[in-house]
Amino acid sequence: VTALTVADRTEAELIARIHAHFQAPPPWVVVGIGDDAAVVEPERNRLEVISVDALVDGVHFDRRFTPPDAIGHRALAVNLSDLAAMGAQPRLAVLSLALPRTWPLPDFDEFAAGFGRLATLHRLQVVGGNLTHTPGPLVIDVTVAGTVKRRGVLTRRGARPGDELYVSGTIGSAAAGLCALQQGDCRPALASGIERYLRPEPRVRLGLLLGRNRAASACIDLSDGLADGAHQLARASGLGLLIDADAIPIEPGARDWFERERLDPVTAAVTRGDDYELLFTVRPRFRGRLRTATAGSDVPVTRIGVCTADPGVVLRRMRDGQAVAEPMPLGYGHFR
Amino acid sequence: VTALTVADRTEAELIARIHAHFQAPPPWVVVGIGDDAAVVEPERNRLEVISVDALVDGVHFDRRFTPPDAIGHRALAVNLSDLAAMGAQPRLAVLSLALPRTWPLPDFDEFAAGFGRLATLHRLQVVGGNLTHTPGPLVIDVTVAGTVKRRGVLTRRGARPGDELYVSGTIGSAAAGLCALQQGDCRPALASGIERYLRPEPRVRLGLLLGRNRAASACIDLSDGLADGAHQLARASGLGLLIDADAIPIEPGARDWFERERLDPVTAAVTRGDDYELLFTVRPRFRGRLRTATAGSDVPVTRIGVCTADPGVVLRRMRDGQAVAEPMPLGYGHFR
Repeated sequence: VTALTVADRTEAELIARIHAHFQAPPPWVVVGIGDDAAVVEPERNRLEVISVDALVDGVHFDRRFTPPDAIGHRALAVNLSDLAAMGAQPRLAVLSLALPRTWPLPDFDEFAAGFGRLATLHRLQVVGGNLTHTPGPLVIDVTVAGTVKRRGVLTRRGARPGDELYVSGTIGSAAAGLCALQQGDCRPALASGIERYLRPEPRVRLGLLLGRNRAASACIDLSDGLADGAHQLARASGLGLLIDADAIPIEPGARDWFERERLDPVTAAVTRGDDYELLFTVRPRFRGRLRTATAGSDVPVTRIGVCTADPGVVLRRMRDGQAVAEPMPLGYGHFR
Repeated sequence: VTALTVADRTEAELIARIHAHFQAPPPWVVVGIGDDAAVVEPERNRLEVISVDALVDGVHFDRRFTPPDAIGHRALAVNLSDLAAMGAQPRLAVLSLALPRTWPLPDFDEFAAGFGRLATLHRLQVVGGNLTHTPGPLVIDVTVAGTVKRRGVLTRRGARPGDELYVSGTIGSAAAGLCALQQGDCRPALASGIERYLRPEPRVRLGLLLGRNRAASACIDLSDGLADGAHQLARASGLGLLIDADAIPIEPGARDWFERERLDPVTAAVTRGDDYELLFTVRPRFRGRLRTATAGSDVPVTRIGVCTADPGVVLRRMRDGQAVAEPMPLGYGHFR
């Protein structure tokens, strides 16, 4: 018996198999999957937030150690994280897949299940998509759209000198989890990092609350790591950042892992990607708004620094009992 | 001197190079390229129409005989054709590229120029995108959004028995052009077919006019050929079609080419793809509306058949002086 692959099914059959994992369309979907395009009613008094992200096998994930449902989860999560960073409520997605003919059919189904579960969790409707085959690696392209009130939009450019810098959750554990997966290391201490790498939880609710409460002056998501995010936010806002290395919430399991690998834990944690946390700035007089926002979310936030008039991102570290200021390393540049 | 490739430039530099070919954002773009996501104001009193299509090198085009600007043109045109089939006015696009590191930088620039020219022609704004590299073939994923009044939406499902079937323009020439390109045949008689294959003109204005004038009861675009489109429209509307083979407007140059290749011209013209024409149905009492619609477009339309209560798509042909009814062949199924 030869294992079935996606090439054993027609496009229409594959679409139906994906469809099985999606919720029934709500009334605002006027024309859904199955026509030349989808037709939707826009939401009243809301702006629309649109983002696209692609995952390529061998570049953004590795099918050898990423279960198919996690590929589906990640493909949507990276996009939801972008919406979260804008303060937007997820609304709809279109899913475009370039499939190698050899992809096993059960893997295809699990992929769809992972994508569909996260979509359902965030009440996100898949309104359309595209399937094609490819002689190359699996490519997953997801475009998402969300909505936000004009007053609740978060961008990267609103920070001012004196604003305080915060990060949500903890960082470094997804990077440690990825290393563990690559090395085939399954110690229980690494399980949470592996899970965070495979199935990141985009900070959708926190982003919404930061926007709605007008708590954050600027915000970015940490898909490419804290160092990259900090540089981008500073550049977009036209200022600098002074970050206290000791304040960075590096996940303890990740710190242990990096030390064991003889890596500097701070450098490793900030330069590696796959933390889908939010990095944001808050005016000191709006700390009350931040408390209101974070009271509604179960993700902790940590103050790690401050915005400065001088450009550049500086990391203040203790070295041999002395505070030294070092330039923040450049981030995880995934293109070059 | 080694030729430069996309791998010699950073993501930010490549984005800037693409950007150079796009128009400045209109006021409804609240946050454009450069943040975590784009933010746009929806258009008042309009529904939104969303479509995605991907092109893969070696599957949907061949870099060996498709100039880079034509790849850019086609990547957008196939999506605009979907909007046209819904009666929608194009509004915005997001462009996601998976780039092989070896892609020459001048080709990348020409690609962007071809994409940008067609976008400008249709006043379509590129609000975002994604760049990644890939170890596989070039993959271009384009998501477009357009707008339409609720009364002007065209779908595949509104046809009724007795409605007349029309097709815009001529068919077959893009398929003949593709064959000519594949065979390296550059006879001048084939030039228009080659051009139609390389740089198809989506029937955006005709689609808009058909919708606005409520002239068409159902509509589909012919990306996968007339046979495929006819089957899809008939299935979606729950009826049959009787098509007169002699009425099908096969482009004369294409007819000559198919005959020279010893192919039946009708079968070849209807089963091959890449005609970005519209196939639509009109209630007999709304012929006046159709005249109004087509008066505003420079694309001719031809009546080729009628909708029937019996399901199935039938092709009526003259064989040895006798009218015979044959089942319409199945279309160009590009997935299996």
